[in-house]
Amino acid sequence: MTGKTIKIGIVGGTGYTGVELLRLLAQHPAAELRVITSRKEAGMAVAEMFPNLRGKVALKFSEPSAGALTACDVVFFATPNGVAMEQARPLCDGGARVIDISADFRIKDVALWEKWYGMKHACPELIAEAVYGLPEVHRDRIRNARLVANPGCYPTSVQLGFLPLIEAGIVDLDHLIADAKSGVSGAGRKAEVPTLLAEASDNFKAYGVAGHRHLPEITQGLAQAAGKPVKLVFVPHLAPMIRGIHATLYARLTAETDVQALYEARYAKEAFVDVMPAGSHPDTRSVRGANCCRIAVHRPQGGDIVVVLSVIDNLVKGAAGQAVQNMNIMFGLPDATGLEQVALLP
Amino acid sequence: MTGKTIKIGIVGGTGYTGVELLRLLAQHPAAELRVITSRKEAGMAVAEMFPNLRGKVALKFSEPSAGALTACDVVFFATPNGVAMEQARPLCDGGARVIDISADFRIKDVALWEKWYGMKHACPELIAEAVYGLPEVHRDRIRNARLVANPGCYPTSVQLGFLPLIEAGIVDLDHLIADAKSGVSGAGRKAEVPTLLAEASDNFKAYGVAGHRHLPEITQGLAQAAGKPVKLVFVPHLAPMIRGIHATLYARLTAETDVQALYEARYAKEAFVDVMPAGSHPDTRSVRGANCCRIAVHRPQGGDIVVVLSVIDNLVKGAAGQAVQNMNIMFGLPDATGLEQVALLP
Amino acid sequence: MTGKTIKIGIVGGTGYTGVELLRLLAQHPAAELRVITSRKEAGMAVAEMFPNLRGKVALKFSEPSAGALTACDVVFFATPNGVAMEQARPLCDGGARVIDISADFRIKDVALWEKWYGMKHACPELIAEAVYGLPEVHRDRIRNARLVANPGCYPTSVQLGFLPLIEAGIVDLDHLIADAKSGVSGAGRKAEVPTLLAEASDNFKAYGVAGHRHLPEITQGLAQAAGKPVKLVFVPHLAPMIRGIHATLYARLTAETDVQALYEARYAKEAFVDVMPAGSHPDTRSVRGANCCRIAVHRPQGGDIVVVLSVIDNLVKGAAGQAVQNMNIMFGLPDATGLEQVALLP
Amino acid sequence: MTGKTIKIGIVGGTGYTGVELLRLLAQHPAAELRVITSRKEAGMAVAEMFPNLRGKVALKFSEPSAGALTACDVVFFATPNGVAMEQARPLCDGGARVIDISADFRIKDVALWEKWYGMKHACPELIAEAVYGLPEVHRDRIRNARLVANPGCYPTSVQLGFLPLIEAGIVDLDHLIADAKSGVSGAGRKAEVPTLLAEASDNFKAYGVAGHRHLPEITQGLAQAAGKPVKLVFVPHLAPMIRGIHATLYARLTAETDVQALYEARYAKEAFVDVMPAGSHPDTRSVRGANCCRIAVHRPQGGDIVVVLSVIDNLVKGAAGQAVQNMNIMFGLPDATGLEQVALLP
Repeated sequence: MTGKTIKIGIVGGTGYTGVELLRLLAQHPAAELRVITSRKEAGMAVAEMFPNLRGKVALKFSEPSAGALTACDVVFFATPNGVAMEQARPLCDGGARVIDISADFRIKDVALWEKWYGMKHACPELIAEAVYGLPEVHRDRIRNARLVANPGCYPTSVQLGFLPLIEAGIVDLDHLIADAKSGVSGAGRKAEVPTLLAEASDNFKAYGVAGHRHLPEITQGLAQAAGKPVKLVFVPHLAPMIRGIHATLYARLTAETDVQALYEARYAKEAFVDVMPAGSHPDTRSVRGANCCRIAVHRPQGGDIVVVLSVIDNLVKGAAGQAVQNMNIMFGLPDATGLEQVALLP
Repeated sequence: MTGKTIKIGIVGGTGYTGVELLRLLAQHPAAELRVITSRKEAGMAVAEMFPNLRGKVALKFSEPSAGALTACDVVFFATPNGVAMEQARPLCDGGARVIDISADFRIKDVALWEKWYGMKHACPELIAEAVYGLPEVHRDRIRNARLVANPGCYPTSVQLGFLPLIEAGIVDLDHLIADAKSGVSGAGRKAEVPTLLAEASDNFKAYGVAGHRHLPEITQGLAQAAGKPVKLVFVPHLAPMIRGIHATLYARLTAETDVQALYEARYAKEAFVDVMPAGSHPDTRSVRGANCCRIAVHRPQGGDIVVVLSVIDNLVKGAAGQAVQNMNIMFGLPDATGLEQVALLP
Repeated sequence: MTGKTIKIGIVGGTGYTGVELLRLLAQHPAAELRVITSRKEAGMAVAEMFPNLRGKVALKFSEPSAGALTACDVVFFATPNGVAMEQARPLCDGGARVIDISADFRIKDVALWEKWYGMKHACPELIAEAVYGLPEVHRDRIRNARLVANPGCYPTSVQLGFLPLIEAGIVDLDHLIADAKSGVSGAGRKAEVPTLLAEASDNFKAYGVAGHRHLPEITQGLAQAAGKPVKLVFVPHLAPMIRGIHATLYARLTAETDVQALYEARYAKEAFVDVMPAGSHPDTRSVRGANCCRIAVHRPQGGDIVVVLSVIDNLVKGAAGQAVQNMNIMFGLPDATGLEQVALLP
Repeated sequence: MTGKTIKIGIVGGTGYTGVELLRLLAQHPAAELRVITSRKEAGMAVAEMFPNLRGKVALKFSEPSAGALTACDVVFFATPNGVAMEQARPLCDGGARVIDISADFRIKDVALWEKWYGMKHACPELIAEAVYGLPEVHRDRIRNARLVANPGCYPTSVQLGFLPLIEAGIVDLDHLIADAKSGVSGAGRKAEVPTLLAEASDNFKAYGVAGHRHLPEITQGLAQAAGKPVKLVFVPHLAPMIRGIHATLYARLTAETDVQALYEARYAKEAFVDVMPAGSHPDTRSVRGANCCRIAVHRPQGGDIVVVLSVIDNLVKGAAGQAVQNMNIMFGLPDATGLEQVALLP
């Protein structure tokens, strides 16, 4: 970049995705933070809300203003669902590129989106244009996208875990199972009883077994890779930890393959997918704070069921880190620019 | 019992199963704690090691002595694997009844046991006689058993979760999946790096995917219920919490059934299996400290895969509580005697 | 009690104090739960909100009704501050005895209460009559009280820790220091960002150093014991755990004494204060779920500063357990009736 | 540094200080990791033990070898106490500079060291030369030091918290109190029962109240600042978290001062001490993974006791980060080189 910087705007920076985005962008060599909006906290210094940013980010939250945002090269939406679809259009038309970390533009089928998200879509005409921001699948289209729909956390870990099997066409597509466990930050920085420490600590539970919003997003991606419909049972669980997703995936092999070699080949050129040696068990802390998906593949007792273990930090490769990776791709930088942080262990 | 008491000995009371057994027996109306042995801690007051027992248990650890133990009505082994098989014979012959909370007598196939446990079995002749202490299956035989092999923690939660489906003969027995998550106390009170708080907290990982000792114990029980062999993929995980197992079970239905009704009927008379209303998600804290297995059954998207959620406290229904339940049955008491504790929530 | 039962009403049972009270009363041999009110949850089964109570408590939340409550022998207020002062009068006049677990009647100086709690007191005329429910100090007056003001959690641990020194008149009363650490359940079951797991876990902080509502309550009790004013610096901290308070107390000795003997003598007859052997360090888990205050006394380097370590479970001896202890005293039962639970460790 | 690199050796990199040092040095622009020794793990890839370093650190553990280490510009000892004093001499004589993160060279009084550490000092002749590596006090001497004794974690937080008051000569030096709370990683990566998750989680306790090894180190530093002896009561506690120290300090003012201004002035030029605005409460997570000490100063109720809240990450500013800061100073780099990481929050 030799001095060239990317002017950055953030809409809605008061949640966990927002503070994580700020942590990463504050260390990014080409990023120039210009504006961060929050109607509720306008006027407050960002570092007052998030003291880890003291001395690192000098910005204050400002009232949303289309003008200031349009003047940016890229605008991140770190907002609740339903906000980006209201505001993306004028930004794109005004020349800013948009990376939406919320779910507004992820599902191509508008009716399906409206069913799962319980609202009318405000900007269906941009859905087709939006590029699903999973770099390991759509890197070429991300490069020139005006609007990137950054994947959800579960969808990132589950898709990266299943893709090699599905692209190879060697598993039963009618009985895929994803047993996923997430840290509590996945629920966002919202005042709610079930995610209080006194409720969620020293406890473990499944939730949303009847249906979770990330199910259609995952099946859309897997079906696209398969070239045909897939059936997935997706069971999310809440684990008593802050960060991390551990997806344990089960698929029935329909053809013999060296699955270890398959995975290594599929991700050989990917900076942020680490296929571990055979027999490994990735732990979520090995990616804590890092933009990385670590994967291990097993065939217990040599049977016909493949077990894939796929871990990410839900706030990094599952949200803000992947968003920065997409920004890098969009602006011609190497994927890894500003994303070389080593995971914090212990 | 009207005044009659059960004289109790405990071999090896310095682990988590031991202290939990003491907590339960200290509150049991018919239990009279006579002797607790520990070669290493002989002479130390039990309440000095476990201060929660101050004022509740006056015993000291004593040197192992066959005489003192044989004089008991029942002897619990809360020892590492390999100890009970050395000592059970003379106790049984001497008239004491034995409840082995370790794994020594759980597997009927000696060669299989020796393969998974990596040692020669010292008392194969008692294996056939030993009754597998899962009251919901073997209550009648437990009543008169001289030697009860108390089930493992994972095997308790997985078997209770799968049994109604398997007994009904309505699932594909070749592709059962048990994705199980355990709190760290399941690893015992052993000084080891991987279970340090700084290693295991704020972290999640699978382990033993290639093979875990509880696999043959579970398949033995399920095969017995099925009347034919079963194939199970069993993936245990370590969750960052003290107590609790959450087993998420997947089975493919081969016949239509009202699974909710099936489960409710199967456990209608069981004091310690709670089938929750349809749509529920049991959390492990709802059984923390209580001798209870809570189960919920789901069929996501109405598909052919049944998802069973089964939770226990690994130290209670998964170890010491179930042992006391077995003792109650062996001595003609109601299952629930001394086991009415309400789970600690939050 | 030989069959006689105490008819019990609870106002506001949807918080942590409420569920803990239900856990204890469900196991209490003389308690008969009659009514539990919650305007918001009226009609919902208590066990639906708190699944640990399934099969243990059959009550449903009901609309507040003075009639149903007045028919009870005792009514517990497990409500936010400001509720009991509105409702206690008619209950007392109607013959029910009242145990207020909130702060409404703890402070004798109405103006002081109004300053710290930021509201006008609705029932100042009952304040003088209300008995401060710390059994170790006021047992005789509790026996016949119509209205008991159950102490706060910090005040219980700090007062029990300081009292022997202050009653003996051997410490500098102008420079008392209480450095207290609390689990997150002390903040209640309220949807608030700072007590989310993702905020409070793996974190430690002080709060309210400028002034905490429990300060005047503590100084009132200590001043009464001293017979003169005291000055206390009270620094509360939030610890990343569910339950437990650890108060570390510092006082400067003004006269030589055997402090260990002093503490042992002071609490010799108290069922729920355990003075540990010299050199001990009580941990909060040793009282988890138990109605117990464990205390250890130190004089580091033989200097003139006494360090007292005092631990309780904030929900038990710091709230619901002490409330039941007060009920026992009020109804002529031994303090320990229904309160013999062994702490859950690990 | 324009291309110049510092050749680095690490002795004993299998503990938490070691992996943290590797995390920081892997991101340091001037650091060239040359050798890391571990007798026990020789031959194993560092990234196999610590998977967060996969793709970041290519080194393997090697057998200790004086030659390879002497060829380095600087050698870090991340060893248990008692190792560096055996090996530092030949390294220093051979031209390598040494930063000892263990306690071997921190205490100037050999007899005092030997009393607290329970062993004979193997290299007393280097103690006088060793520079105590607290940059905020000894920066000038660190610059040219051959041997730096990197401070302990508690001593860093407590000294930085007390120094302004003591240097100003405005507090009672006979009654200083430090109530300190540490995460479990402070105990090291050692297999021990008390730091197991099942023991230390959801629990809080004091330890070592009778005397902790960090006491003489702290009093040495404070006495030096005061120019006369000081008396400190130091009570360490174990908090159920991985990282972080929160020191709550109490001192009695003997003269009126604007303490906020005093602290701000004292640390105005320090990159890694952040004096927060009046009324603040720093939380440990605000420095998680960052080389920073955040401090807030209070005078509760305007009394004569000053309360200082001082937080660090025990593995960063309390160990590895401060060691890298010292390296930077020794090699003429700005303190902050390679240490700009933003704390991980949440």
